[in-house]
Amino acid sequence: MVVCHALTGDAHAAGHHGEPARRGWWDNIIGPGRPLDTDRFFVVCANLLGGCQGTTGPSSTDPATGRPYGLDFPLLSVSDLVATHRRLVHHLGIDRLHAVVGGSLGGMQALSWALEAPQEVETVVVVAASSRLSAQNIAFSAVAREAIMRDPNFADGTYLQTGRSPDTGLAVARMMAHITYLSEAAMTAKFGRRFQGSDTPRFGFGVDFQVESYLRHQGESFLSRFDALSYLYLSRALDYYDPFAEPDAAHQLDRMVAAGTRALVLSFDTDWRFDTRHSVRIARRLEHAGVPVTFREVASDFGHDSFLLPVPEYHAIVAAFLGAPALAPAGRPARGTR
Amino acid sequence: MVVCHALTGDAHAAGHHGEPARRGWWDNIIGPGRPLDTDRFFVVCANLLGGCQGTTGPSSTDPATGRPYGLDFPLLSVSDLVATHRRLVHHLGIDRLHAVVGGSLGGMQALSWALEAPQEVETVVVVAASSRLSAQNIAFSAVAREAIMRDPNFADGTYLQTGRSPDTGLAVARMMAHITYLSEAAMTAKFGRRFQGSDTPRFGFGVDFQVESYLRHQGESFLSRFDALSYLYLSRALDYYDPFAEPDAAHQLDRMVAAGTRALVLSFDTDWRFDTRHSVRIARRLEHAGVPVTFREVASDFGHDSFLLPVPEYHAIVAAFLGAPALAPAGRPARGTR
Repeated sequence: MVVCHALTGDAHAAGHHGEPARRGWWDNIIGPGRPLDTDRFFVVCANLLGGCQGTTGPSSTDPATGRPYGLDFPLLSVSDLVATHRRLVHHLGIDRLHAVVGGSLGGMQALSWALEAPQEVETVVVVAASSRLSAQNIAFSAVAREAIMRDPNFADGTYLQTGRSPDTGLAVARMMAHITYLSEAAMTAKFGRRFQGSDTPRFGFGVDFQVESYLRHQGESFLSRFDALSYLYLSRALDYYDPFAEPDAAHQLDRMVAAGTRALVLSFDTDWRFDTRHSVRIARRLEHAGVPVTFREVASDFGHDSFLLPVPEYHAIVAAFLGAPALAPAGRPARGTR
Repeated sequence: MVVCHALTGDAHAAGHHGEPARRGWWDNIIGPGRPLDTDRFFVVCANLLGGCQGTTGPSSTDPATGRPYGLDFPLLSVSDLVATHRRLVHHLGIDRLHAVVGGSLGGMQALSWALEAPQEVETVVVVAASSRLSAQNIAFSAVAREAIMRDPNFADGTYLQTGRSPDTGLAVARMMAHITYLSEAAMTAKFGRRFQGSDTPRFGFGVDFQVESYLRHQGESFLSRFDALSYLYLSRALDYYDPFAEPDAAHQLDRMVAAGTRALVLSFDTDWRFDTRHSVRIARRLEHAGVPVTFREVASDFGHDSFLLPVPEYHAIVAAFLGAPALAPAGRPARGTR
């Protein structure tokens, strides 16, 4: 199986390692006996092209100049991200995967993998994703990028040479993103109007409400692990993503049917970053083309963040889908990576 | 009647004047034959305390130092805003108003006026407002303030002395706010995924989608008319606003009943900045106390912005409410400003 990570994720999807040891971002779903069952499947997760955790990205050194690429790095599409990971899988000698699985941007990669190379994908699991961002989705991305690119330290993307990084812009972008990751109800339950460290307000412009403390922490902790240029490149890949509008989409869907690729499309009822309508659109397009597709909306209080959390119904659906016997692809017997 | 303006509004509520002449922000609802009928009522609108359009605010000169107050300006509450305008009304020789009317922060002032001085208010119209911001509401405010206060040009609020204003932070704050002013459906209808000036994408980090152009315009045009310190002070007044939690709320409500003050509380079904639950909470508190209250949720595609727009049902409800004969206040005959 391949697991595709989301915008700010990385290859450390499962297990507890690193220095200092930390838990993988999807450890609750990957492991022995878990829905992505490592007793039965070999699970691969690699860093994204354009990211800042290992694979080449805009902060990598351009061999032509000896300096970081910065904004000279080419714009990326979700297809480019998938093409890189397909090369990795080929390099590993795998020609057909039991599953490609991802949430959010990870789900978009999974969908594109199934559309572009269905012969490599028995099943695809697309969680809390979109095939086409809405104007509001793009608006949030756009403001995040404005915050980064207007930060004087951004210096037209050359900040890696100056040693002054656009921390203000990146922190503001991350804080804003976190508002969209949680449902309003979850934010109310988690923070309400409670004050930080006191029952009474301090009345001022510093952190006073607990929700302010949470956002500031999210903004600050992000700075040590993420890069502003990667944020720009990967968020822009989401904005332009629209695979069913591609000229060869109908042909891709026909090939997906012929390959016998099955899809699970799953959304969360309180997710307002990519609400259920986004998943319904994906499921309908696949279904109309004749792709065997299971669509489920799962009740969860936690909004978009739900895809990272051990929501029992969600995990049960994924486990059942991945454990079910694969359909034989048209023309040849099923062959997995099990 | 007094009209209370919202966060970034001003005293120019109606008419077409100024240099260059511009239309008042609520001209569609105020005027001869309009719901706030100037053939029948004298309508007063004044700039907010803490704002930057005329009344004293943090950018005003502190007589003690000869420099702008900056962050030495005292924190403001909605009550402070109302207290200032009550003084104005007393100065004008008016001791009882037919109505105090406002949307968003304006509605909060109207509500507080009715609670704090019900003997001065025959009717109160509270549109698209809240008596208690949610964690998500506060989160958006908090990120906007972070953007402003982290802008290096903010310089701890002394930027009026340096001549370098925190334009990046203020523009980002405004762009983010505009996302919350429009409903997702309105944004989709208005912009969808259309590109700016072309049918095809340009593929880059500049403005490409129409929604990006809209947001950038909103951010830029705001800089010439608003001040970052006023944005901080007024947005913080909203965060802390919680009138029904004040110790004397029950007493205030009793006095409102005794004064015969009637209330109209109105929300819009697609408003997600202050959704209908906020208005329902206000209406219920008033109703439980025995205040005559009319609550209406109006269908409108335009989200929070609806309160500024000539939505026919909304205007009809306001017109009917303001035109209806006032109840006699307990103990004395009705006396209006008509």
